[in-house]
Amino acid sequence: MQTLLNNIAAEMARVTERGHVADYIPQLAHVSAARFGMAVALPDGQVFTAGDANEPFSIQSISKVFALTLALGKRGDALWQYVGREPSGDPFNSIVQLEHESGKPRNPFINAGAIAVVDAIMMGHEPKEVLAEMLNFVRYLANDASICFDHEVAASELEHKHRNASLAHFMKAFGRLKHDVDKVIGTYFHQCALAMSCVQLAQSGLFLVSDGVNQATDSRVVSAQRARRINSLMMMCGHYDGSGEFAYRVGLPGKSGVGGGILAIAPGKASIAVWSPGLDRIGNSLLGTRALEMLVQETGWSVFGH
Amino acid sequence: MQTLLNNIAAEMARVTERGHVADYIPQLAHVSAARFGMAVALPDGQVFTAGDANEPFSIQSISKVFALTLALGKRGDALWQYVGREPSGDPFNSIVQLEHESGKPRNPFINAGAIAVVDAIMMGHEPKEVLAEMLNFVRYLANDASICFDHEVAASELEHKHRNASLAHFMKAFGRLKHDVDKVIGTYFHQCALAMSCVQLAQSGLFLVSDGVNQATDSRVVSAQRARRINSLMMMCGHYDGSGEFAYRVGLPGKSGVGGGILAIAPGKASIAVWSPGLDRIGNSLLGTRALEMLVQETGWSVFGH
Amino acid sequence: MQTLLNNIAAEMARVTERGHVADYIPQLAHVSAARFGMAVALPDGQVFTAGDANEPFSIQSISKVFALTLALGKRGDALWQYVGREPSGDPFNSIVQLEHESGKPRNPFINAGAIAVVDAIMMGHEPKEVLAEMLNFVRYLANDASICFDHEVAASELEHKHRNASLAHFMKAFGRLKHDVDKVIGTYFHQCALAMSCVQLAQSGLFLVSDGVNQATDSRVVSAQRARRINSLMMMCGHYDGSGEFAYRVGLPGKSGVGGGILAIAPGKASIAVWSPGLDRIGNSLLGTRALEMLVQETGWSVFGH
Amino acid sequence: MQTLLNNIAAEMARVTERGHVADYIPQLAHVSAARFGMAVALPDGQVFTAGDANEPFSIQSISKVFALTLALGKRGDALWQYVGREPSGDPFNSIVQLEHESGKPRNPFINAGAIAVVDAIMMGHEPKEVLAEMLNFVRYLANDASICFDHEVAASELEHKHRNASLAHFMKAFGRLKHDVDKVIGTYFHQCALAMSCVQLAQSGLFLVSDGVNQATDSRVVSAQRARRINSLMMMCGHYDGSGEFAYRVGLPGKSGVGGGILAIAPGKASIAVWSPGLDRIGNSLLGTRALEMLVQETGWSVFGH
Repeated sequence: MQTLLNNIAAEMARVTERGHVADYIPQLAHVSAARFGMAVALPDGQVFTAGDANEPFSIQSISKVFALTLALGKRGDALWQYVGREPSGDPFNSIVQLEHESGKPRNPFINAGAIAVVDAIMMGHEPKEVLAEMLNFVRYLANDASICFDHEVAASELEHKHRNASLAHFMKAFGRLKHDVDKVIGTYFHQCALAMSCVQLAQSGLFLVSDGVNQATDSRVVSAQRARRINSLMMMCGHYDGSGEFAYRVGLPGKSGVGGGILAIAPGKASIAVWSPGLDRIGNSLLGTRALEMLVQETGWSVFGH
Repeated sequence: MQTLLNNIAAEMARVTERGHVADYIPQLAHVSAARFGMAVALPDGQVFTAGDANEPFSIQSISKVFALTLALGKRGDALWQYVGREPSGDPFNSIVQLEHESGKPRNPFINAGAIAVVDAIMMGHEPKEVLAEMLNFVRYLANDASICFDHEVAASELEHKHRNASLAHFMKAFGRLKHDVDKVIGTYFHQCALAMSCVQLAQSGLFLVSDGVNQATDSRVVSAQRARRINSLMMMCGHYDGSGEFAYRVGLPGKSGVGGGILAIAPGKASIAVWSPGLDRIGNSLLGTRALEMLVQETGWSVFGH
Repeated sequence: MQTLLNNIAAEMARVTERGHVADYIPQLAHVSAARFGMAVALPDGQVFTAGDANEPFSIQSISKVFALTLALGKRGDALWQYVGREPSGDPFNSIVQLEHESGKPRNPFINAGAIAVVDAIMMGHEPKEVLAEMLNFVRYLANDASICFDHEVAASELEHKHRNASLAHFMKAFGRLKHDVDKVIGTYFHQCALAMSCVQLAQSGLFLVSDGVNQATDSRVVSAQRARRINSLMMMCGHYDGSGEFAYRVGLPGKSGVGGGILAIAPGKASIAVWSPGLDRIGNSLLGTRALEMLVQETGWSVFGH
Repeated sequence: MQTLLNNIAAEMARVTERGHVADYIPQLAHVSAARFGMAVALPDGQVFTAGDANEPFSIQSISKVFALTLALGKRGDALWQYVGREPSGDPFNSIVQLEHESGKPRNPFINAGAIAVVDAIMMGHEPKEVLAEMLNFVRYLANDASICFDHEVAASELEHKHRNASLAHFMKAFGRLKHDVDKVIGTYFHQCALAMSCVQLAQSGLFLVSDGVNQATDSRVVSAQRARRINSLMMMCGHYDGSGEFAYRVGLPGKSGVGGGILAIAPGKASIAVWSPGLDRIGNSLLGTRALEMLVQETGWSVFGH
């Protein structure tokens, strides 16, 4: 495994077409497209790494996996009154589908759906309390108490809030958000501003590898059924309107973030995190996807084979 | 396994809400919603059955899996110039996306995409020749020379061709079909009019279980990579805008048909065919999905667990 | 004319199917559907009335005509960088078209367009200043210094701001609004909360009857060309996706408001205001449209005849 | 008037940016963008001309005005079960709205709507009979028995039928066309292949100038109300998603054709035909619109002024 990761990192270092780093906020725009990190966490707790695997980066939309897990814990199946579970066929920040479907987002991983998930988590609490709970949950998942929000990123997101504010107000107009719009999106931006390294991220995904149990820490996080369902949502919707492409090329449930990270789950095998800030046209990490493709080709970890 | 299938069939027999049988052509409308069949084919050639598992039915859109396989064999990756590989987020017969995306269908399993696949297969040949090749291919996959087209169904489809004719002419207007529209959709309707039993269908899917090899007949049909990719497309797009729901509840690559059949693949485990004519709101077999859900719960065959 | 108005009012009093009064804010919901008023102002200053013609009501979207006039005065043709001049084919509060056309609203009379017009008027000033200017302008047009905002309505609109806030944030995300979103929509809600009677409204439209000149007060408000262009926009877009119907049945440029008012212009002939709170499915006054239809049938004032 | 037309023609001759000649069929593609003709027919029968005013050209979609008039004569208000009367906000050949609105076209002037109008006219007759009736009707309107179909154009349209065939099959799938699709679109293509000169076209529009009466031939064609309603539809929908622009700049009901012709009606004043093959981005004659704009500026014929 270590040799394989070394080979992948070496191969990625040679790539010159590295995609386009997100530039809508300066904190993301200033990250070098040359960065590349990868970590593979096995159920037994072993972690293999390559490149900048210990460098914290803004996990952005990958946080939606943790928020979904938290929301399912609080709401159970009632969560699906807030949000659907179908691919949208539209970009991550699209509002068209909301108008056609009475303000109910298609799935928890497009922005509108993730905002609805935050609203479902809040249950009358203040953003500060909700964020503390989220942070504790992620630290618990990753078994690492050093994980933090990057408040500069959150503040900058808030300055560029308008597209997400539009989504939130639209849902509010349909009575689909229970809390104050500004509080909901403030919480959402903080959630997305979680800073984690590939190692931390890979460890946080271990419960999805082993049917809900983090075997490394010997703790059951969710039921087997729920873990499988979260994986199914990552497979179907985790890369927005590039989800089909990711399934085709990589064949694993995965969730990408605009910071260039991807968390991918090989059930029964490993939790994998990869980070490379350059994005493709859809907004998914260009080299991250390619690295996962290589990994799966060598390991045969695709869920579509055996 | 046999006990499990018996239990499932017994349970399904008790269900009173059986969905709505497709009624756009009399040949489908006259099938009783009471019918239920299921077959599980294992890589070693064993087949377990329950209910009407040997009764041939109209496989309809399930045939798109075989056509896709054939087209990939003829065209390789050039096929993706004809058709995309993303979930559409729209109903199976929608034309909206075609207008927004220059007449290129999102994936090979919505109607427009399947018509484009037929065009890609034709390569200048007449419908009769193309259909003969398709039939031979399916007989080879299922290892059963008795499989036939139901020409009555095909003729009836042709009488109700207008929605599909609209899709085909739209793509033709964008230069995306090379052959005569009437020949393409005539071929398409015949392809969809394949009559197969659950047993035949389950056997025809074995090559997707074992990385491209039908172990029962010891023949390699496609490469391992291609088998995995076909599975990924079935997972992402096999149930139209109900694909997310199917992945969430069943967790297997699958393809449904309006005749009430579903073919599902558990990689490394089994090829499963189920048939129950009553459909849900999206157009997928209501009891077929439920039966698969039960099967996977008992066997743990979801690709999202281990 | 007086006899005709009496007849119309009598006829309208007999109608039992009076439409549905807007109920999204209590101030509108509490208005009785039994109310009906009408006023016809002639270029020479004569005003004929019937029913509740002196009762002030919430003019709502009719105010968009005055805001457009003001914006054209400040910005000239540069206004068309902010907003288009085509019918949208969509409901008044739709956001779909904004996503498809980079956040630029189709015309100044759908909500998104009217919000963009407010932004164009503001030019760095505070809402209070802008509203003072708007009020002065409307008082000047109507030659009536008693016209006021209904601050209760404005406050209530603000509480139900979410759909419009969504439109505004969406445009802001595309850089199409220069001012703070809350200030822009606060100003917009006040503008829409103008309270005017049919008499006041009819008088305020006189400048559009006589090629830009209010002959009753002998003042030129805009150039002849601009008056004609404003009329053309009212004709094409003044009743949202019911504009075709209004043109077909009434044949005059007109602008409706959700409060149940309609201002219609018969060029060279008269400025007509009608008020009846019950709305049709599209959101236009049911009896108001019918009353105008009767008026035009009797007078032959349709612009499409001679 | 003659001097004005001379000036306009001279001005147009100087324009170098002449738009893009339609090139989807050779018969249109081979027409020179240098051509320009104009004719103004007054109610008393006088006709003023400039440029190539006696040169027949393919009137294409302008024929939809005559077909609509014929259909209203046969069906009366029942026609509106076939087709709506609202601007679509979409391009002339769009199919999106059909899917969202159960296959009913928004208005009689977009392609789908015009095809539905042809179906409404057919009433069980063969294309040949229907076309003979159409031709007689247009000859009667224009008072000129020499008008003919250009069969070469019709044949060429048929070869490039696919977009329109798609629209027709789509409507047929919703049960909105009663006749055979091939017969309907065959008839439609012939209708669009009418060849007329500006003089003939201007004369054929006289009945819309004088409330339904062609005063030059002293014949009542339709009722006053119907004439006004046809004018309203031309105003609202006659230039597709450029109708707002035409109303804004010209201010007359008008109908354009892809052959570069425009018929415009100044109620009570004149029927005007202009021809220049170069089109704008929307598909309307670039110089034709400009010439009409000049004419209206000089004559003050806008329906929005007095």
